[in-house]
Amino acid sequence: MSSAGRGFEMTARDIEALAYGAAFLGSGGGGDPYIGGLILKQEMARKATLAILDPTSLADDARVVCLGAVGAPTILIERLPNIDSFVRAVDHARRRAGDRIDAVMAVEAGGLNALLPLAVALRLGLPAIDADAMGRAFPETQMMTFSIHGLVTSPLYLADDHKQSATLEARDNVQIELFMRPVVDAMGGSAMAVAHPLSGADIKRTCVPNTLSTQLAIGRAVLAARAEKRDPVLALIDHFRARPTEGRAVFNLFSGKIVDIERRTDGAFAWGRIRIADLANENETCEIEFKNENLVARNAARPLAMTPDIITIVEAESASPITTENVRYGQRVRVIGLSAPAVLRSEKAIGIVGPRAFNLDLDYAPIERLNA
Amino acid sequence: MSSAGRGFEMTARDIEALAYGAAFLGSGGGGDPYIGGLILKQEMARKATLAILDPTSLADDARVVCLGAVGAPTILIERLPNIDSFVRAVDHARRRAGDRIDAVMAVEAGGLNALLPLAVALRLGLPAIDADAMGRAFPETQMMTFSIHGLVTSPLYLADDHKQSATLEARDNVQIELFMRPVVDAMGGSAMAVAHPLSGADIKRTCVPNTLSTQLAIGRAVLAARAEKRDPVLALIDHFRARPTEGRAVFNLFSGKIVDIERRTDGAFAWGRIRIADLANENETCEIEFKNENLVARNAARPLAMTPDIITIVEAESASPITTENVRYGQRVRVIGLSAPAVLRSEKAIGIVGPRAFNLDLDYAPIERLNA
Repeated sequence: MSSAGRGFEMTARDIEALAYGAAFLGSGGGGDPYIGGLILKQEMARKATLAILDPTSLADDARVVCLGAVGAPTILIERLPNIDSFVRAVDHARRRAGDRIDAVMAVEAGGLNALLPLAVALRLGLPAIDADAMGRAFPETQMMTFSIHGLVTSPLYLADDHKQSATLEARDNVQIELFMRPVVDAMGGSAMAVAHPLSGADIKRTCVPNTLSTQLAIGRAVLAARAEKRDPVLALIDHFRARPTEGRAVFNLFSGKIVDIERRTDGAFAWGRIRIADLANENETCEIEFKNENLVARNAARPLAMTPDIITIVEAESASPITTENVRYGQRVRVIGLSAPAVLRSEKAIGIVGPRAFNLDLDYAPIERLNA
Repeated sequence: MSSAGRGFEMTARDIEALAYGAAFLGSGGGGDPYIGGLILKQEMARKATLAILDPTSLADDARVVCLGAVGAPTILIERLPNIDSFVRAVDHARRRAGDRIDAVMAVEAGGLNALLPLAVALRLGLPAIDADAMGRAFPETQMMTFSIHGLVTSPLYLADDHKQSATLEARDNVQIELFMRPVVDAMGGSAMAVAHPLSGADIKRTCVPNTLSTQLAIGRAVLAARAEKRDPVLALIDHFRARPTEGRAVFNLFSGKIVDIERRTDGAFAWGRIRIADLANENETCEIEFKNENLVARNAARPLAMTPDIITIVEAESASPITTENVRYGQRVRVIGLSAPAVLRSEKAIGIVGPRAFNLDLDYAPIERLNA
């Protein structure tokens, strides 16, 4: 992994661990990484290794495209993301940016969207950056660390699987989202999105670093525990607790059984509410609200964790993360909370990715304080 | 006018007649041409003449951009169309098409949108084509003669007054409309739209010719009648009746007073219904349904005229066309019907611009038959 701060080479053997870490950091969103893993395996069958660059090694004038699939996860699992469509969107970006792209970065750290950029990088013969622009998954494009730093990622390039495309140029990232969402809807509810290339200097200043190496380390810890018949959920928790210098606080927020799910898909988002009951005392419940991603977990009315902190539901025995679209009645689960990267917790950041940005009537309280 | 089929020079003195003709052909839509006249006068103050080319004189490989403002007329009269924004959209088209544009054509023959392309042509130093792609005004972009001939105008370039833009590439003109409409909505309800350049050969094959010379002739006939204190509505009707070879049937469908108007603006369209009562017998009424443009006029349940035939409400005394957003209770009006150009009446065309294309439960019947 990123030992010397220069990067590493990734191979097909890393995919399973990476997919696990990506699923865990997705906070229930970013789309099912199982699909991302399959697509990545397919690309790795053609080219065995992928260069992963540490963002600090980027030249200031490097041109980096950030990308991800857009749409409700419920739609993304029905219409498989297409690498050819990504390549078409990147071609639009390349033409507009003067015919040069040097590297690919994931917009988000979670789920499917953590893996797709690696498949695109392989196809394009470019390195991928060990970083992302969300530190987890979020449902709206303006919820990037770029916005926290006042950086506008315009134009945005969209492509769908019918060779249709859109280039959307707006004055700020919120307006980009407002232009993009209905076009994605008119494209059938999902599309491949590529942001206009950012400079290496801007990426270094604004990214959440070490995304891929963090995902790999999480995944390796859990896979090792499974192989050695240890409790993988405990291994997951121990992984973070053994790294106090990384500053990530982790909590087993709740254990129980899924007893109720409400869902609706509208405006290209999957909305809903999940209720989990304690197996010993069914009056003791945990309620989770989601918009593509899990946003807030409550025990009765008391919040246990809220956005931007990460809330991931995992299968009780295997520790497999369950994305919001895959939650089913009767699943035995544990709810794991992980503190968000520091960059997402500034006052400016909380305005963009905190509970009020999702119309939740809650002031942000860090997961460490809620579970002290 | 277009005597030798080669075109003519237009000056500021032609604007009033042209604006009248454009308003009349608008079927109540295309936006208020008064605003278009003002914008055109402003451009003509800088450059005194504009070359108008007959489409037959276009080289086969000429590149022609078709353009118009998009949005509900109720919004277009509040946010004045901006020639700078059109120029930005044309620049996007030019870059994508290989840096050459040879001429400008109006998408529609009606209202504001008949005049704006002339202002854009003046600003760009390009000739305008004596033709359009609708032969009247229609509310949706796919309702162009290009669609009747199977020609896809993709990409479409949109620009607004905040230097925001969108380039929308789709597999057919209906899909272009589906991508475009919500982006226009997100731009605040109006935007300047430019279609990807078409070849001179395609324009010659698909356009409605003589648009500007027809508008000028209509306008001159009415302005002359006003100057000579003759009835301008009669002059308007006589103008068409004196030109039987042009094949345009004209009817005074109804005379009376506006007694009721229902309106709503949604999805960037102005919808509504107008009721006009006979002054002598108020039980005798004419009902007009509109979607930006007047779509069908009925006397009791009996249709008097329907799309694509042109239905224009004019002020009873002055013959001034009243666009749908300017209809007011109490106005004394006459409802004039004019048969559509032949290209709009083919079976294929009726599928695209006939009553069922607007969800009206009516089979198309030509205005001549309804008023035989």
